[in-house]
Amino acid sequence: MTGEKKIRRFKCVCAYDGTDFNGWQSQPGGGSVQDLIEARLEKIFGKKTRIHASGRTDSGVHADGQVFHFDAEWKHSDAALLAALRAGLPESVLPLSLRTAGKNFHARFSVKSKRYAYKIREAKAPPKEARYVWSIGKRLDLEKLNDAAKIFLGTHDFTSFSANRGAGAKENPVKTIYSLEAKRRGKTVVIQTRGSGYLYKMVRILVGALVYASQGKFSKKDLEKILEAKARAPYGFMAAPAKGLTLEKVFYR
Amino acid sequence: MTGEKKIRRFKCVCAYDGTDFNGWQSQPGGGSVQDLIEARLEKIFGKKTRIHASGRTDSGVHADGQVFHFDAEWKHSDAALLAALRAGLPESVLPLSLRTAGKNFHARFSVKSKRYAYKIREAKAPPKEARYVWSIGKRLDLEKLNDAAKIFLGTHDFTSFSANRGAGAKENPVKTIYSLEAKRRGKTVVIQTRGSGYLYKMVRILVGALVYASQGKFSKKDLEKILEAKARAPYGFMAAPAKGLTLEKVFYR
Repeated sequence: MTGEKKIRRFKCVCAYDGTDFNGWQSQPGGGSVQDLIEARLEKIFGKKTRIHASGRTDSGVHADGQVFHFDAEWKHSDAALLAALRAGLPESVLPLSLRTAGKNFHARFSVKSKRYAYKIREAKAPPKEARYVWSIGKRLDLEKLNDAAKIFLGTHDFTSFSANRGAGAKENPVKTIYSLEAKRRGKTVVIQTRGSGYLYKMVRILVGALVYASQGKFSKKDLEKILEAKARAPYGFMAAPAKGLTLEKVFYR
Repeated sequence: MTGEKKIRRFKCVCAYDGTDFNGWQSQPGGGSVQDLIEARLEKIFGKKTRIHASGRTDSGVHADGQVFHFDAEWKHSDAALLAALRAGLPESVLPLSLRTAGKNFHARFSVKSKRYAYKIREAKAPPKEARYVWSIGKRLDLEKLNDAAKIFLGTHDFTSFSANRGAGAKENPVKTIYSLEAKRRGKTVVIQTRGSGYLYKMVRILVGALVYASQGKFSKKDLEKILEAKARAPYGFMAAPAKGLTLEKVFYR
């Protein structure tokens, strides 16, 4: 025994259908995506292996490209580890890629920006899409929505558009939104946004606010005032349902 | 009281995600799409209302356009009945249209043809699609597949490509296939077929046979021999998984 262990850091990109999960983050009772993946890694490595994601996603939120890292001893190829990980997961969670990363890579702290997409159906969603869209039953005025969205571009304190995550959750409320725009794709309206980061429930609250704005329930001025207030309490009610939201991609430095 | 009842016949087109249902057909323990819709109609009309579909779909099979009819007394508009029916159903079942039909219309006996689509993913399916496709993990030779498919065009006794539905199920095994073709649509291979009718599990068994043919496991001649044998037993194993199959449209005279 040389005492030298070949611990490597792995970066994994994975997709999941969040419908039947208790969110990303490990829960005392299990049922989260993290719990599922860690249980699988424990089987592969024979010991508890903690994974670290770019951030949590709420119960019901989906991912096309969540990123997590973990440290482990593994003598075989990245491809073999990806295959082993895939083999033990249900079809609702799919690791897309896995590679050895540098020791300095951190799935959360190395994030440069994240891109989310929120999907809305103006009419009732076909059953095969219903798990992934918010059916609002009304036509959206996209011109109005996109005009209101401009307020949020750039760097702001987004406290007003976040929900309370509970005690101990202290995060810098100043975030930079690089893009925030709604487009019609077939019969679906997709609101896509890329930003340096997002506070708890922030994307869903922004989407809710923009839908209200498109319906004339908030003016652009109203939204500006809310943003300037930097006060959390009264706007959590606006959060759009989790199921329409997908973490599309995490960008790294 | 005049004794005159205004019974009308209604035709309804509906879509469903079959994943969580026990098939279309009413079951002793419930859990089928038919059970769900009949329970809803019973609430609307205040009495048991039997519905009659174009045909059953197996557990896990989806529909974009299943058709059923029923007779009921209803003093209001078709649109009001559609709204009432929709209101009480989960998002996995969506009545798309409902209208008063002629007394001679019968959802099953008036069928002219049906169109099904079977979706295959050559690589692992993304989680949001996994419920609706068969992931085979191999590249398909579509030229070979489509060449083999020609065998089935036209009118044949399809006993060899059906499964036993159980005692008492006597159906004319002679069916006409108007079209049967595979196309690549993005990363999905779609096998679409229109025919006068299909025996029990016939579409799934045809799909399984064509996938085998595309992999060289059956020659065109093998398939011809199997078709000519008109013997059911040995080929049920070929049935492709239910989840890839969707009843797309029912055509009427």
